[in-house]
Amino acid sequence: MATPPFSEVLVTEARQSIRVGLLGCGTVGGGVIRLIERNRESITARVGAPVEVAHVLVRDASRERVSECKPEWVTTDPEVVFGDDSVDVYVEVMGGEEPAKSYVERAMSLGRGVVSANKYLLALHGPALLQKAADNNVDLAFEASVGGGIPVIRTLREALTSDSVDSVHAILNGTCNYILTRMRNEGIAFEPILKDAQNLGYAEAEPSLDVDGHDAAQKLVVLSMLAFGASVNVEDVHVEGIRDVDDIDFAFAERFGLTIKHLAIGHERGDKIELRVHPALISKESVLGNVNDVLNGAYIQGRALGPCLIVGRGAGEMPTAVSVVSDLVDVARGKISGRPGLATKVIRPVPRALVPMSEVETKYYLRFEVADESGVLGMITGALGDEGVSISQVMQEGRGANGESVPVLIITHPAAQGAIDRALAKISQSGSMKKAPRLIRIEDL
Amino acid sequence: MATPPFSEVLVTEARQSIRVGLLGCGTVGGGVIRLIERNRESITARVGAPVEVAHVLVRDASRERVSECKPEWVTTDPEVVFGDDSVDVYVEVMGGEEPAKSYVERAMSLGRGVVSANKYLLALHGPALLQKAADNNVDLAFEASVGGGIPVIRTLREALTSDSVDSVHAILNGTCNYILTRMRNEGIAFEPILKDAQNLGYAEAEPSLDVDGHDAAQKLVVLSMLAFGASVNVEDVHVEGIRDVDDIDFAFAERFGLTIKHLAIGHERGDKIELRVHPALISKESVLGNVNDVLNGAYIQGRALGPCLIVGRGAGEMPTAVSVVSDLVDVARGKISGRPGLATKVIRPVPRALVPMSEVETKYYLRFEVADESGVLGMITGALGDEGVSISQVMQEGRGANGESVPVLIITHPAAQGAIDRALAKISQSGSMKKAPRLIRIEDL
Repeated sequence: MATPPFSEVLVTEARQSIRVGLLGCGTVGGGVIRLIERNRESITARVGAPVEVAHVLVRDASRERVSECKPEWVTTDPEVVFGDDSVDVYVEVMGGEEPAKSYVERAMSLGRGVVSANKYLLALHGPALLQKAADNNVDLAFEASVGGGIPVIRTLREALTSDSVDSVHAILNGTCNYILTRMRNEGIAFEPILKDAQNLGYAEAEPSLDVDGHDAAQKLVVLSMLAFGASVNVEDVHVEGIRDVDDIDFAFAERFGLTIKHLAIGHERGDKIELRVHPALISKESVLGNVNDVLNGAYIQGRALGPCLIVGRGAGEMPTAVSVVSDLVDVARGKISGRPGLATKVIRPVPRALVPMSEVETKYYLRFEVADESGVLGMITGALGDEGVSISQVMQEGRGANGESVPVLIITHPAAQGAIDRALAKISQSGSMKKAPRLIRIEDL
Repeated sequence: MATPPFSEVLVTEARQSIRVGLLGCGTVGGGVIRLIERNRESITARVGAPVEVAHVLVRDASRERVSECKPEWVTTDPEVVFGDDSVDVYVEVMGGEEPAKSYVERAMSLGRGVVSANKYLLALHGPALLQKAADNNVDLAFEASVGGGIPVIRTLREALTSDSVDSVHAILNGTCNYILTRMRNEGIAFEPILKDAQNLGYAEAEPSLDVDGHDAAQKLVVLSMLAFGASVNVEDVHVEGIRDVDDIDFAFAERFGLTIKHLAIGHERGDKIELRVHPALISKESVLGNVNDVLNGAYIQGRALGPCLIVGRGAGEMPTAVSVVSDLVDVARGKISGRPGLATKVIRPVPRALVPMSEVETKYYLRFEVADESGVLGMITGALGDEGVSISQVMQEGRGANGESVPVLIITHPAAQGAIDRALAKISQSGSMKKAPRLIRIEDL
């Protein structure tokens, strides 16, 4: 990595402030303006110059904004915002793919640093945007794209300098965590809690992005750029949501000292990496097992650092705005130093192969609803044994009257997903199952 | 806060590397050398120039060092280390007050940035050293002084720019946490576990610094500089250790859904701040309540950020070295930018009054060992009521045979320490107590 001698890059400009072009002014954008205005003195001290808003690009100029947003900043015309040579940094808080992508690219082409809070943009185009930032010697910072206010990107970026990351286990979707927490505490099913969450504004009317795991998968892809230097297609990540989590499984999990969380998991496995998003059983006495309600949490295992866990609000106007302003301060400092882009150039994701899901090994919790006939337990354990799956614990309870089903619970030792799938297929064909078997992976945390 | 225009401070120097003077080479120092050597490429990319060790100052040159430490670096002569004009940053990993303090001051007087892992030095002289750093336009970074590898200082420093901190609740001493975790899990007393911890190397032969709370108090004073901009004498912090924690209290705590942790607590209270270190009862389902064994954890409440909790290894060669190298990279970047010292100047602790302990309000868990006589419970509740202490729950169990003592447990609503102290004094004088009453504060987390 050739570094030009300082004298080549230290270009002195006698400027008096860092001017910001804000792209979008929804809840997060409003929070950013608030924090910039309220913390003028400390931001000036940290950056070494005042940071001021120059323009605020919006779709609808007539909408009401936070009181700190001066009307003369607001415009619907991108040419006003990108045509102003005095702007130093663009802050993209619009969300979505377009026009956010075009705006971010345009800003970087103009040699300006960018702060983005847009997980979707980063998950889809992160590696290409980072390359464009490097080509233009500008910074692209995106702490707010994952985990709202919690400094997970910052921690991974630091680790990138002097450590390497072995694994990440993270609760990245507040809606899923809220629903699972209430299912556990109240013993009620997914559907009524989802409705409640929608009424409370914790879940969208169209909840699929959250409860089917896609939001968490996008965030995992962003984290993987930093944790594993990996450029990954989000479609290649194994994703399961929480719709199939049954409230009865919380009660059974409790007996094994476990609880169910929706986790985004990344693991370095030799040359490959393992990325998966699914409900998982973890110890109810683990730290991550006690990250409840809408909180997010990321458990990072660094080779030198050891375990590091960060927990906080994963969404919301002010927490997310704090992350955006922290990034803005960093990018402004890079600009002022005359050596922008260094913090970003360290992140160089390259395509990395994923471990096929059939080869991923975990322990499993298996729940069968079986006809209460002799020989069924033997058939199940036999089918698992035939595939080399070794059993750690079995629990069978009660006897159903007159052909009622009874639950059989099995905890396995670590086994490959492929072997489990083959065993479950055989068991399902036996005719003794009252329902499809239920599988939840177990993670040791 | 006047900021000079850029052109005044952007001094270009055509230099090819950042040279480090390492002061001390014990376990952390060895880890720092290892990380610098192993992560040469990523550190170069991040800093914008290679970072190389120039000198390693030690007391005993004959001691064996990590293999990455080149013999030609090692010297016992401070004049060699401070006389070399090519050194850019000094890294102090000696610990203790002197000569660490003189060395750090000398480095800053020479216009060099300093990284220190020394909590004792920072707790005693932090504000003066920060002032000296500001006077000399250099950085003083000290992430490794608190919480080993966990980025708690970094998080507070970021918050300092765009947020303000309302409170910090932290587990800062791994030895205390290890002992309390085993007391809870195994139901055995303090003394035998301390002995075990000493044999395992988790506690010092002279354990007072750890188990009497002084180590945590020093770290709390360091955190308070960032969290509350406060310059505080460590002797003024209310400190209780864990020697008086009785294993029986874990069993009683469990019934209330609580567990005991040794906490360092800071709270902004109007103009004043509240600082205290003591065992505390917290929900066993809180995140901090599940930070176990030697792990450290800091729960920060930011006004904009909301809650943010960071957990990890609070000590150890490599975790601490990761923090030192992160700081080194920051200080090196400041140096290269031609505008060093900005990150440090933001931290400007000023003397702040502490809330007197008698005015500190919490809920309390009170345990009395009383003679099994009629009227004792009435006397206790009466004495509390006389001082305006309102009771939330009472638990009295069993009856002692023939004058045996029986435990009475009381959970109060929030009350001032002064009121509790007066009530307990009256109760103690009653003659019905078999032992001194036991008090543990309860924190809602």
